[in-house]
Amino acid sequence: MLLSQVAGKVGLDFSGHDIDVCGVNTLTLAGPGEIAPLLHRKYLPQLASTRAGAVLCEQRHAPEGASCLLSKSPKLDWARVVALFARPQGCLSGVSPQAFVHPEAELGDGVTLYPFVFVGARTKVGAGCTLFPGVYVGEDCEIGPGGVLYPNAVLMAATKLGANAIIHAGAVLGSDGYGYAQSPHGHVKVPQVGNVVIGRDVEIGANAAIDRAALESTKVGDGTKIDNLVQIAHNVETGKHCLIISQVGIAGSTKLGDGVVLAGQAGLRDNIALGDGVQVAAQSGVGQDIPAGSVVGGSPSMDAATYLKVSLSLPKLPELMRRVRRLEKAMEPKESGHE
Amino acid sequence: MLLSQVAGKVGLDFSGHDIDVCGVNTLTLAGPGEIAPLLHRKYLPQLASTRAGAVLCEQRHAPEGASCLLSKSPKLDWARVVALFARPQGCLSGVSPQAFVHPEAELGDGVTLYPFVFVGARTKVGAGCTLFPGVYVGEDCEIGPGGVLYPNAVLMAATKLGANAIIHAGAVLGSDGYGYAQSPHGHVKVPQVGNVVIGRDVEIGANAAIDRAALESTKVGDGTKIDNLVQIAHNVETGKHCLIISQVGIAGSTKLGDGVVLAGQAGLRDNIALGDGVQVAAQSGVGQDIPAGSVVGGSPSMDAATYLKVSLSLPKLPELMRRVRRLEKAMEPKESGHE
Amino acid sequence: MLLSQVAGKVGLDFSGHDIDVCGVNTLTLAGPGEIAPLLHRKYLPQLASTRAGAVLCEQRHAPEGASCLLSKSPKLDWARVVALFARPQGCLSGVSPQAFVHPEAELGDGVTLYPFVFVGARTKVGAGCTLFPGVYVGEDCEIGPGGVLYPNAVLMAATKLGANAIIHAGAVLGSDGYGYAQSPHGHVKVPQVGNVVIGRDVEIGANAAIDRAALESTKVGDGTKIDNLVQIAHNVETGKHCLIISQVGIAGSTKLGDGVVLAGQAGLRDNIALGDGVQVAAQSGVGQDIPAGSVVGGSPSMDAATYLKVSLSLPKLPELMRRVRRLEKAMEPKESGHE
Repeated sequence: MLLSQVAGKVGLDFSGHDIDVCGVNTLTLAGPGEIAPLLHRKYLPQLASTRAGAVLCEQRHAPEGASCLLSKSPKLDWARVVALFARPQGCLSGVSPQAFVHPEAELGDGVTLYPFVFVGARTKVGAGCTLFPGVYVGEDCEIGPGGVLYPNAVLMAATKLGANAIIHAGAVLGSDGYGYAQSPHGHVKVPQVGNVVIGRDVEIGANAAIDRAALESTKVGDGTKIDNLVQIAHNVETGKHCLIISQVGIAGSTKLGDGVVLAGQAGLRDNIALGDGVQVAAQSGVGQDIPAGSVVGGSPSMDAATYLKVSLSLPKLPELMRRVRRLEKAMEPKESGHE
Repeated sequence: MLLSQVAGKVGLDFSGHDIDVCGVNTLTLAGPGEIAPLLHRKYLPQLASTRAGAVLCEQRHAPEGASCLLSKSPKLDWARVVALFARPQGCLSGVSPQAFVHPEAELGDGVTLYPFVFVGARTKVGAGCTLFPGVYVGEDCEIGPGGVLYPNAVLMAATKLGANAIIHAGAVLGSDGYGYAQSPHGHVKVPQVGNVVIGRDVEIGANAAIDRAALESTKVGDGTKIDNLVQIAHNVETGKHCLIISQVGIAGSTKLGDGVVLAGQAGLRDNIALGDGVQVAAQSGVGQDIPAGSVVGGSPSMDAATYLKVSLSLPKLPELMRRVRRLEKAMEPKESGHE
Repeated sequence: MLLSQVAGKVGLDFSGHDIDVCGVNTLTLAGPGEIAPLLHRKYLPQLASTRAGAVLCEQRHAPEGASCLLSKSPKLDWARVVALFARPQGCLSGVSPQAFVHPEAELGDGVTLYPFVFVGARTKVGAGCTLFPGVYVGEDCEIGPGGVLYPNAVLMAATKLGANAIIHAGAVLGSDGYGYAQSPHGHVKVPQVGNVVIGRDVEIGANAAIDRAALESTKVGDGTKIDNLVQIAHNVETGKHCLIISQVGIAGSTKLGDGVVLAGQAGLRDNIALGDGVQVAAQSGVGQDIPAGSVVGGSPSMDAATYLKVSLSLPKLPELMRRVRRLEKAMEPKESGHE
């Protein structure tokens, strides 16, 4: 593809002479046939020495005379450029005779089912979906058009997936929520008869787990992106365009507004609500409602500015104890006797 | 089913007139043909406006004239009512010709094996078990009667499962423990030749991992419930009726008594013992033995009452430092010179 | 096998009379035909009462007249003794007709593929590898000789595995990294076009997740051992012989030197570097570069000595606040009025 064609497809201007490009790479590794991005000022030294045939960068950083894609939003435009060269994974198409499709299931046009896929009764697989080996889709599910389910992903019964879903390998949607009633003879399982409903343009990471609701639905909003090994308990609801990063855990019935960001390993207790745009720092433990727009950190969580100060103070705590002891000693004559 | 029949099956009285019920739902969503529960006083307003045909609640909350199941233990009785209406997952029965069963394996009566199930040599699958697609059961395993293994669950060799086990999708039992000996040439694997032994009425969550013992057995006691993404290392032993919530990690050889509760993301170091009834707060880090009946929190963990006070004090630490500095300054004339 | 033969195979002296041994076990459980190890002084009482036919221990602990394997490195030699008796898992060999092998894939000599294995186009599976049921190996992968991939392990396209890899059940290598660019219409996926490259003698735990690089490669160094449920994000690079314990999370592009040890549930932020030999305590949160040889703990992390003192001080914080208040009160007359 010519650089000019790339520029045309993503709607960017380009400077320098036109070249033939065959791929994308980093500034340090790219060769003469590749485009590389300048995504942060700290990589300017790499820009100076790159062997890349072309560079995507802001106009002000474009090297004199070099072939450049000129971008006002390098990260976003880079995503689009990479998409032009990315090949989808997989090496088969069509419905494998080694897949199991229940006679009452419905497959849309252009569906690819790899060997060892299972599609249950009354389930509808939308047009253009690809289900890799080992995928299980239980009965009464709906998968919107354009979905990709990577190997061994599991959708238990009645799970609904919006359009363009990407479910990574080993992710499990619709497993039973963790619900028990106490009895004199031990914990009695509360059957989990709800389901999981996922909006459109959602991506779910490898080995993540999203439980079905006890009643009603566990919900993930449109455009929300969930990373690997995340736990989402029964009856949780996330808003749209949330970012839920690896190993986060959200306990039962907790609600997230739109655009919430939960950093890695954060934990949210059950039955709380986080407003729109809330951001939670890595490893935080959130135990109460958080108003929209707040940034919190720590376990238990506090507002981010306080958390930063606490984090800086904490290593000085042992010394602080010594200082207080010294003060007490200095006061002793005055306090004579009653310690 | 008539409400009177429901009442009879779960052993409850009912008030109001008899109605025909077809399912269960929440107070907010239930319609005239459904039963809804009042599980907490905070839902009393929903009770006032519910359209549910019948309500399960304590006698004192039963609305005048409404059709009610009268319960002294609403949570427990609700579990029983839901169970009357819950359909088991799945849409096949019997042994699929697309399953692989080793000729030396033994299948009990009424076993269902979905396509793409693997059952290894000398393994015994108890009566009435259901193994969903992608389940792997290695050689020399025993699965008690009534077990359900959801898609892609894995039992490595010699794993023993008690009766009525529920193993959710992607859970792995019997993977090698993490054991290495140091050598000048790197870490040398200590072969893990023990196994995993699970009691009866145990449920294990999606994508959980329970390692086989180095020698002897990793053990999970009867009635213990393990949530999604939990890690149980080699030679751990849990007591009976423990609750181990999502993303908890228990390191090697640690022992839990009966009725222990570990909240989400808690971590337990290796080779410690938690007594009967110990409760550990979410995200805690337990590094030492904990006596029976204790409630602990924090990382490293402390008793819960202290932890609560520490949590409240922590945000005030930066201010405390300023206050101590002010005190020191005020003292300075007296301490003249020796700071 | 005779004890003398065991001694010969692992290169140890033995004392006492020769016996016939059929297995290994713990000091408490071993019978007359088994060898048991003394791996720590604290087990000396068990040594006194063991029924084991032979014991592996240091010379100074060898009971008078007993059959003993005399070791200067009991842990390491024990690993070797166990290896003599450990049977590999599995009950089949050869390529199952129920496996799917793409016509353009290449299988080395002595490869075992169980039923329901998928091997993609242009992938090379090295000699002597065993792939258990449900394993998916995408296109353009390379698996070095001697590898074992347990059930439902997944290698996405272009993953490279060095020799002697052990990939436990449900582990996912090569899933997409978590990369998005912000746009007015939501998060735009940055296609992840790099891959995962794993060195030799690497073991990866059950349900772990290692993402492919955005560009270039996510790398795991030779001899590194990764435990269950670990998350390794895109473009992370680990050195050789690292130990990464269960539920650790490493964010994008972070680099580990050689011999780094990350204890359970620790989290590392993105784009930082940990030098050779760094040790990170359990549940720590590391947010910055750590120089070689450091030992750190806490969230946020601090040097281990400080962290230990902070951990001891923390439970006394509420009392410290009361003490400071008392000091302030005692000072009040002097500070008259301006509080």
